[in-house]
Amino acid sequence: MSYIKLTLSYDGTNYSGFQRQQNALSIQEVLERTLSKIYNETIKVTGSSRTDAGVHARGQVINYLAPFHIKTERIPHALNSVLPEDIRVIKSDAVSPDFHARFDAKSKLYTYTIDKGKVHSVFQRFYTWHIPYPLNVSEMQEASRYLLGRHDFTSFCASGSSIKNKVREITQAYWLEEDNILRFYIQSDGYLYKMARIIVGTIVETGRGRIKPGKIVQILEEKNRSLAGPTAPARGLCLERVFFENNKH
Amino acid sequence: MSYIKLTLSYDGTNYSGFQRQQNALSIQEVLERTLSKIYNETIKVTGSSRTDAGVHARGQVINYLAPFHIKTERIPHALNSVLPEDIRVIKSDAVSPDFHARFDAKSKLYTYTIDKGKVHSVFQRFYTWHIPYPLNVSEMQEASRYLLGRHDFTSFCASGSSIKNKVREITQAYWLEEDNILRFYIQSDGYLYKMARIIVGTIVETGRGRIKPGKIVQILEEKNRSLAGPTAPARGLCLERVFFENNKH
Repeated sequence: MSYIKLTLSYDGTNYSGFQRQQNALSIQEVLERTLSKIYNETIKVTGSSRTDAGVHARGQVINYLAPFHIKTERIPHALNSVLPEDIRVIKSDAVSPDFHARFDAKSKLYTYTIDKGKVHSVFQRFYTWHIPYPLNVSEMQEASRYLLGRHDFTSFCASGSSIKNKVREITQAYWLEEDNILRFYIQSDGYLYKMARIIVGTIVETGRGRIKPGKIVQILEEKNRSLAGPTAPARGLCLERVFFENNKH
Repeated sequence: MSYIKLTLSYDGTNYSGFQRQQNALSIQEVLERTLSKIYNETIKVTGSSRTDAGVHARGQVINYLAPFHIKTERIPHALNSVLPEDIRVIKSDAVSPDFHARFDAKSKLYTYTIDKGKVHSVFQRFYTWHIPYPLNVSEMQEASRYLLGRHDFTSFCASGSSIKNKVREITQAYWLEEDNILRFYIQSDGYLYKMARIIVGTIVETGRGRIKPGKIVQILEEKNRSLAGPTAPARGLCLERVFFENNKH
């Protein structure tokens, strides 16, 4: 037996999200099916993040218990030759028996990408939100700064969440611009249901002049989802990286 | 009546190529169907380049005769709201009655993109050829230089072509490297059937050490397709730009 951690990249366009569910194809199901084929035994995986339907990943992390040893560095190739083209294993590591991809994750970095070209790039269409209207990026930067630190993010959580403690700490929140691409970087110790996308939807409202950046402070304080902006489309969101404590990778 | 030139970008993945054909969906067919709907009359278009099945474009040019005037700057939006997401009109211009997208094209710039990462990027998978083996880029640059100038490209033309004169002039042929992406730029006054992809397939053979760069000279001289390398996959090729004489755009 060995304990394995995998780092995955996937195009979430054709999946119902990471987490296994009835009547819809998830990343987890495809991954478990593939691992079970390779090990000839049922394998269950634990993922760091439940990315939603249509959300992508460059650095999702999962762990599983392997019933027998396969040379760790051979695992990506073995899996990639069976997995569909839109899911790739980019790294494998042997980990200690107590490693848990979700509980041990200290923070996660997501990006959200906006294509602000006049016409939506055909090559980026599944990975960007197309906004052909003017956006005031300095207003968006200012709005983002109000999110930094520990806050109760009830206003930025979609209904349907059963989680009680809605306090999270955001350590990074900024935009980078290059040509027609505007990309948001957000790092937090945890995310509520659709939190990253509601944050982006709200900040875009400040960029369009519909909300003043300072309003973010009030929205946080009021703990009321209806005060925040709309949920940005899933296709622009990507889980870039999961951070663990140093001694656990 | 007005004479219109359009610049198009498309993801060729799901099409049989630019040119209309029986039993397979082409870019031309979708475009003519959309224009015919907008003008409520059958419209035929002429394209600068017959991109093959699976080949992409950032700057294909077409022209057509419009039966009535629509404000030129409104045409992209009017078409894009009807066209599928993988075909976009990025520019429209009024042209003189004698403008012909194919005959007036002086040269065309194509790029060919290789993903040389260990694992094929899921986000670039439809737009790149994945080569995870080492490539000697300086050998590839040298090989490319032998293609410059006027040559008979019979050795780089797929069989099945009925064209007699196989002399073309290549004015640019070089590679740029950035991170895991290796991109070939080729500009020529014309391309024979699958010429760009056979050139790439042959240069990659030099990069893998299977052909010496200087062999390109001999391959050109011998006028024999079997001496050149394999045809590179369509997905890496993209028509970037069509050049016309200054007075015709």
